[in-house]
Amino acid sequence: MKNDKLEVTVIGGSGYVGGELLRLLLRHPGVRISQVTSRKFVNLDVSLLHPNLRGVTDLKFSNPDEVRHSDLIFLALPNGESMNSMEKWLSLSEKVIDLGADFRLKDAAEWQHWYGKEHVLPDWLSRFVYGLPEIYRREIKSARYVAGPGCEAAVSILCLYPFIKNNIIKSHPIIIDAKMSSSQAGSKASWASHHPERAGAIRSYKPTNHRHQAEIEQAFRPFSGEVAVSISATAVEMVRGILVTIHAFLDKEIGEKEIRAILKKEYGNEPFVRIIKMNRGLYRYPEPKILQGTNFCDLGFELENRTSRLVIIGAIDNLVKGAAGNAVQCLNLMSGFPEETGLEFTGLHPV
Amino acid sequence: MKNDKLEVTVIGGSGYVGGELLRLLLRHPGVRISQVTSRKFVNLDVSLLHPNLRGVTDLKFSNPDEVRHSDLIFLALPNGESMNSMEKWLSLSEKVIDLGADFRLKDAAEWQHWYGKEHVLPDWLSRFVYGLPEIYRREIKSARYVAGPGCEAAVSILCLYPFIKNNIIKSHPIIIDAKMSSSQAGSKASWASHHPERAGAIRSYKPTNHRHQAEIEQAFRPFSGEVAVSISATAVEMVRGILVTIHAFLDKEIGEKEIRAILKKEYGNEPFVRIIKMNRGLYRYPEPKILQGTNFCDLGFELENRTSRLVIIGAIDNLVKGAAGNAVQCLNLMSGFPEETGLEFTGLHPV
Amino acid sequence: MKNDKLEVTVIGGSGYVGGELLRLLLRHPGVRISQVTSRKFVNLDVSLLHPNLRGVTDLKFSNPDEVRHSDLIFLALPNGESMNSMEKWLSLSEKVIDLGADFRLKDAAEWQHWYGKEHVLPDWLSRFVYGLPEIYRREIKSARYVAGPGCEAAVSILCLYPFIKNNIIKSHPIIIDAKMSSSQAGSKASWASHHPERAGAIRSYKPTNHRHQAEIEQAFRPFSGEVAVSISATAVEMVRGILVTIHAFLDKEIGEKEIRAILKKEYGNEPFVRIIKMNRGLYRYPEPKILQGTNFCDLGFELENRTSRLVIIGAIDNLVKGAAGNAVQCLNLMSGFPEETGLEFTGLHPV
Amino acid sequence: MKNDKLEVTVIGGSGYVGGELLRLLLRHPGVRISQVTSRKFVNLDVSLLHPNLRGVTDLKFSNPDEVRHSDLIFLALPNGESMNSMEKWLSLSEKVIDLGADFRLKDAAEWQHWYGKEHVLPDWLSRFVYGLPEIYRREIKSARYVAGPGCEAAVSILCLYPFIKNNIIKSHPIIIDAKMSSSQAGSKASWASHHPERAGAIRSYKPTNHRHQAEIEQAFRPFSGEVAVSISATAVEMVRGILVTIHAFLDKEIGEKEIRAILKKEYGNEPFVRIIKMNRGLYRYPEPKILQGTNFCDLGFELENRTSRLVIIGAIDNLVKGAAGNAVQCLNLMSGFPEETGLEFTGLHPV
Repeated sequence: MKNDKLEVTVIGGSGYVGGELLRLLLRHPGVRISQVTSRKFVNLDVSLLHPNLRGVTDLKFSNPDEVRHSDLIFLALPNGESMNSMEKWLSLSEKVIDLGADFRLKDAAEWQHWYGKEHVLPDWLSRFVYGLPEIYRREIKSARYVAGPGCEAAVSILCLYPFIKNNIIKSHPIIIDAKMSSSQAGSKASWASHHPERAGAIRSYKPTNHRHQAEIEQAFRPFSGEVAVSISATAVEMVRGILVTIHAFLDKEIGEKEIRAILKKEYGNEPFVRIIKMNRGLYRYPEPKILQGTNFCDLGFELENRTSRLVIIGAIDNLVKGAAGNAVQCLNLMSGFPEETGLEFTGLHPV
Repeated sequence: MKNDKLEVTVIGGSGYVGGELLRLLLRHPGVRISQVTSRKFVNLDVSLLHPNLRGVTDLKFSNPDEVRHSDLIFLALPNGESMNSMEKWLSLSEKVIDLGADFRLKDAAEWQHWYGKEHVLPDWLSRFVYGLPEIYRREIKSARYVAGPGCEAAVSILCLYPFIKNNIIKSHPIIIDAKMSSSQAGSKASWASHHPERAGAIRSYKPTNHRHQAEIEQAFRPFSGEVAVSISATAVEMVRGILVTIHAFLDKEIGEKEIRAILKKEYGNEPFVRIIKMNRGLYRYPEPKILQGTNFCDLGFELENRTSRLVIIGAIDNLVKGAAGNAVQCLNLMSGFPEETGLEFTGLHPV
Repeated sequence: MKNDKLEVTVIGGSGYVGGELLRLLLRHPGVRISQVTSRKFVNLDVSLLHPNLRGVTDLKFSNPDEVRHSDLIFLALPNGESMNSMEKWLSLSEKVIDLGADFRLKDAAEWQHWYGKEHVLPDWLSRFVYGLPEIYRREIKSARYVAGPGCEAAVSILCLYPFIKNNIIKSHPIIIDAKMSSSQAGSKASWASHHPERAGAIRSYKPTNHRHQAEIEQAFRPFSGEVAVSISATAVEMVRGILVTIHAFLDKEIGEKEIRAILKKEYGNEPFVRIIKMNRGLYRYPEPKILQGTNFCDLGFELENRTSRLVIIGAIDNLVKGAAGNAVQCLNLMSGFPEETGLEFTGLHPV
Repeated sequence: MKNDKLEVTVIGGSGYVGGELLRLLLRHPGVRISQVTSRKFVNLDVSLLHPNLRGVTDLKFSNPDEVRHSDLIFLALPNGESMNSMEKWLSLSEKVIDLGADFRLKDAAEWQHWYGKEHVLPDWLSRFVYGLPEIYRREIKSARYVAGPGCEAAVSILCLYPFIKNNIIKSHPIIIDAKMSSSQAGSKASWASHHPERAGAIRSYKPTNHRHQAEIEQAFRPFSGEVAVSISATAVEMVRGILVTIHAFLDKEIGEKEIRAILKKEYGNEPFVRIIKMNRGLYRYPEPKILQGTNFCDLGFELENRTSRLVIIGAIDNLVKGAAGNAVQCLNLMSGFPEETGLEFTGLHPV
């Protein structure tokens, strides 16, 4: 801490999540970014890759091999990389928030099943808190190590949590039809991301066996034993955002009013969860486009009595509530800042 | 028939389905468009509303009250209008293809349930053949009156048919998550279709109780008794096209190879159904964007053994296989033309 | 002023500029919104029309006939409306910022020529300061009445100003090829804004005789006598933003270095003008998409020696620097707040 | 010729122009594709890269080193490649249509100036006919070697031709503000084409010194001596298509009626040029989106008397009239087919 500011390091600052962390931290009144690394772009202006930061910062990328000690490190690395270097980061900071997938699951065998290789630091899995403040706020407040959730997992868990916790829906089948934006695949160009191919696409790319199923099922074991969650992911024409349409089946008769009461009980005091179920206007259910840049998770629902189906609709910005914004929210909890600090942007309309 | 050409009338030619009919019929070698009506645009060039037809036709809109006899009438009217005027159209033509919803259901009570008013011509419901050639080809060939399917129903029925007919999936739950384009809502401007609001939207607009559920369930009663189908419809950023992701559950163990064999048996000779399940390239499952302007229905699938889930993926152009192109396919069957006549366009890539 | 906050009224709060004013003012630490009016939506939540403000404000629309006195009034009315009611607004507030076109031109005859009707309050034209802070900062600071510029005019004047003031380009021809977004046409739905028609459009809609030519020419008369400016406006696929490509011709030989020096001299201290001319990276010239929600005007250029052509490239968010943000910047100047207050948002990337 | 079909080879069939040639040739009644090459994808189905051709053809890519003799060769190679291998292609076919840039310019020094390297076959430059049928129809009919125009050049020349030929506009300045789609940059992925970066972009990428200026100026030398043409190219959100807004200045007073008469004289019989200047409807000037897949060049204009400015607006599909379709039109002329054969597609609306 210098001048009462928390000294923060961002490892992996050239990607989209890293850029979003910089955007948020540069406007955070309690934080100073001391280093941001990129092996590939050492000594170049961060605004070369994040042109929205032109004139806002003079930061340059530094070498990840030359990181100095700081108060908190954010890791925004590709999956599978943070576990290889974690011991180094732990020696360079009191606190670590890992935005990758390496420390999200508690069980090393389960991790290996979904990620296809052995975990390098299995003993550390239990030491990371799953960084979803709405559910694990107390644990995060006292945590030194936090693993940020996957973006589909974050929105899906927030959508399902009140219904599973309160025994409203059956534990199987729970189907998550996820509509995904192009930024979720990262900043590296590929054939699949080539504009003439990706533009206007409505492309089923992971209809079954999605890794985030594991995180979601893990989250609900304490509440209801095993749940069986199935994700189908479709890429749609959008740069930022996720919309999930979750199809579940009622375990008992329930009305809209009762559901509203439960949602109010669970989320009424949450600064970033809004219940969106309107009977007029255009935006009657959650929609990702007006959430771009914000840390909100919007949540709506509808009942289909004929088939006992409950449809839960959730939306977030995958780079904010699904990654960088949620991590800043964790930082706020871990460091004693008001939880909304640096996350005040309301979003734009129209957009 | 003049000069061996079938004389055809299009009622309701100013909308998007009407325009698509004109586009297809103008290039159909066996057809002559004798009249195209629009009450609002009488005497104006059809190319005023359908600018792709500039230089292609000199047709003008005529008054629907002054229609002369012809060999076949297409009705492209808003839902609820064709039943009010049907007796007139029946007197003006031997054959009628209605692209609206009025004669799709066989049961008047069911129609009233879903459309919220009493049917005007209940006795005629049984005289219309449901115009889906892949399933009712024989009936359409000898039909005088055909009701074209709803677009979500068309693609959903084609996706589910092989699996329900061959008892592969359970009859409940069957969840159809439909991603819809903006043209489906028609050519009339509204707040919801205002570009700054609709552009980039991923908008849940009919999460439950979708009318097309009735058509789909009706289609499968002969095969399996009652099935319970749930549609959730989401508007995505796309002008033409539908993608359905159908989530169903296996009634018995089955492998990919066996499914491929069944699909080949059911659809191997179909000119407009393609099985799309590739293990390389970008377009591994059906995608609506490369189907724009074509009469194809592309169909793919994936199995999730862990949850006994079968995901069926289907794509069409809602204005072609979901409306006008499918109607021209019916015309071909009803009139003895080769089934693909006028429907040869392959689609574009990239697009 | 209550509790040291400036009491502000927004007249015409249901449109896009009104909504953007609310978004900015709600986060402005020195301002309190006392009233926001909409004749059509009286008593409804402002978040019904501006869904990004859900959970951020409980404001409701009030009746424009029941406006109470406040410290400053913003008028966000359709062109031609504010002059009819201006005397009323002047009686209700010390200060007025009109975001419409009624008081932008100094000459009543010129106004009548471009807007096609007689001006109702010609004597008041000279009492309004043209609200472009980068050029009229001193006048705005002491102004009571400010007329906000048209969005194409704002960006075009900022692009041309250093070059005309320093006699670098000829006064004729100056061609402004403006690429416009859909929000510029306002929040009212129309055939032209219907998504299937407007989506993906690259539509020349005002190739000649654009009204904003008058504002631009008026701005430069003090510097160089008459300039002849021609705007051609094309609607492109974008919800927010303008890109202008300005083609002008050099009055004397000049190099890139010299131009950079002039731009630095004119704009080096401006908080919202950035010179963007990079030799690496993707964003080498100004681009509107990363400016969404920000008050920046980005400005770049390129020389074509062979034809003595200077190309100036400018980008803004039409709703922010082209309207609401620029008006808040004026408010800050008029009220003694630091000029950037409430306008700190950096913009998003990717987006 | 086998069975009266012209045997045609496509060299470089994996790119977007190659794919478009295949799409058109597969539906051309007088042509048989005997070979399509791709060094990278030898033995793979062409439909792997061109998914619109699934079920339409079983063609596989063959090795460019194993090409057999055929009646006509299309070259769809990157700029600078065809001149290196041209002698081989000339030995394998009576006729060659090169869609690249290597043989478009007549002057080897000029070619070197614009393309930055020495031309390998300078003596052959004069033997290639510039393949723009509307201007060089007679020459193309008897040509063995044709060089297809660049896409911006094709639409710009067609727009300017009637005005320069008839001495209506001054020879300088002529400013072409070109709005370009993403497919024009080819099928190879890059950072610049990465969807999160390219989507929604309105990006000035070549504001000065565009290579196509040379082709355009060359085209008009016979008519008016030197003209000075300046292109500024901006990438907009569109996969296919070009819109050019051409700003020129009148050499004499002229009215709209007189211009219409000249356009009718020059283009009244052209099958693929349409004059679009409407006083009602939405599509009053040319627009690329309804031209996707078609061989049309739409052309409109507007006069600004105050500044003696003429604005000419032109639109094409860059892959069709700007490349593959125009080449098929040349093939038709060279081979005695009716000029419109295989090019009958009208385009879609809405789209």
